[in-house]
Amino acid sequence: MKKRSKLYSIGETSKLKNLSIKALRYYHKEKILMPAYINESTGYRYYSAEQFIHIDIIKAGRQLNVSIEEMRKIFSSANTEELLFFLEQKKKDIDAQINQLNSVKNKIDILRKRIDDSFNIMNDEDFKVTHFQERYLMTTPSTEGKESSDLLDYSTLDCLMENYEIKSIYESGTLYYIDETGHPTPTFVFELINKEDYFKNKDLFSILPTGNYLTLSYTNKNRNEKMLQLRNFIIGNKLHVIHCLELYLFTDIFDVNAFSCQLQVYIKEYN
Amino acid sequence: MKKRSKLYSIGETSKLKNLSIKALRYYHKEKILMPAYINESTGYRYYSAEQFIHIDIIKAGRQLNVSIEEMRKIFSSANTEELLFFLEQKKKDIDAQINQLNSVKNKIDILRKRIDDSFNIMNDEDFKVTHFQERYLMTTPSTEGKESSDLLDYSTLDCLMENYEIKSIYESGTLYYIDETGHPTPTFVFELINKEDYFKNKDLFSILPTGNYLTLSYTNKNRNEKMLQLRNFIIGNKLHVIHCLELYLFTDIFDVNAFSCQLQVYIKEYN
Repeated sequence: MKKRSKLYSIGETSKLKNLSIKALRYYHKEKILMPAYINESTGYRYYSAEQFIHIDIIKAGRQLNVSIEEMRKIFSSANTEELLFFLEQKKKDIDAQINQLNSVKNKIDILRKRIDDSFNIMNDEDFKVTHFQERYLMTTPSTEGKESSDLLDYSTLDCLMENYEIKSIYESGTLYYIDETGHPTPTFVFELINKEDYFKNKDLFSILPTGNYLTLSYTNKNRNEKMLQLRNFIIGNKLHVIHCLELYLFTDIFDVNAFSCQLQVYIKEYN
Repeated sequence: MKKRSKLYSIGETSKLKNLSIKALRYYHKEKILMPAYINESTGYRYYSAEQFIHIDIIKAGRQLNVSIEEMRKIFSSANTEELLFFLEQKKKDIDAQINQLNSVKNKIDILRKRIDDSFNIMNDEDFKVTHFQERYLMTTPSTEGKESSDLLDYSTLDCLMENYEIKSIYESGTLYYIDETGHPTPTFVFELINKEDYFKNKDLFSILPTGNYLTLSYTNKNRNEKMLQLRNFIIGNKLHVIHCLELYLFTDIFDVNAFSCQLQVYIKEYN
């Protein structure tokens, strides 16, 4: 029943095993599948029928994303137990790749949601009361005013986020201290972080309390007008406001001259 | 609050945005991020603060597996809506990649199971009655005897499997017709296929019935002895046997001189 002995030319082998002559030559060159016999005068390669299962292994390996380097290792040890061990490792690699891809998908979802939310927020032309759940933030003291811009602070913050391997949820901004006359002073720049990262290392982060916030969005075009509007509202309603958050919106991220933000003022007292 | 105008040297930009000078030069060369100003006499590159969000986009893109070619497209259209559309496409690509990786994992599991099963079967030195659920097979007529070996048949079968996109479950062999004297004639070579593939195109395939099978494994070393044992058992028990399956086992797939098989005889009548 098993009569595998005859030699087959590279052309015959290619046809019988549905693997190109080019591929057979390549696997020879890479010392993965050595021909059973090479005619010294013509240089023609011949394969024995017993080698055909090795071609099956190579073909299976290609389907299993096995690299040439790995294939060479498998054939140099030529041990079924080691092949099984290798395949288990391969499965772990695949799991790691799948996790990485899922995390990329997750990042895309977060970014997309942030852009969608930004457009919705931009459509709120007037004041609004918005309820927020508890939020967590990573902060660094603002040097704005002392330095030429807030960029240095964001770069400090970026480094901190990277060092602690904290995922960005694309929500960043500046926290202002509001004095008695209503004048804002930048105190911190911040990035909001997710609950999961917060609970990994609570000491690093601050909390924004659950509750109602007075919110108002502005663009570079109507900024001054909107700021005045907010200030008058706070004074007119005798709100006790100490802090104001300014969150950058992702509306047109390519236009370097345009920007938009949402102001958020915590109004525990206001109904 | 937003004062982004000053120019920054490539070194300053690199430090502020935590992206190497080499990378900045590369993105310039690739026409993805053009410096805001290049000093004609020194050739030094300068970046404006407004461009820093573009560096953020590039950095985010790298985390999201965006290729250089794709990055160039994003920056040449510079449109947020198009970016969102691109990201949705990216998610679909990722889903396709995850599916492909899961199918590789699945193939590894099937191969591993087949090897494990093969070793277990090999340990059965004597007859055994094994119950099998309904199994499905793709067949091609055996030309063994007429031709020099059964290899041609397997290569025909391989082509059929590939053409119909049927997944191998690494269970193949030969089906023998047993005549009244107990002499076996190879009739078909076959590959077992999974239920899913069977139901996709029933007409292409044959069925092995549910039921008890008399099984016996052999290696190249004890083949003749075992074959005789089976024949005597069938005759001695007056079993009415028409077909015998010979399934190739994956015990030592690297040893070209060794092989092992399991014989399976359907014994509806036998208890």
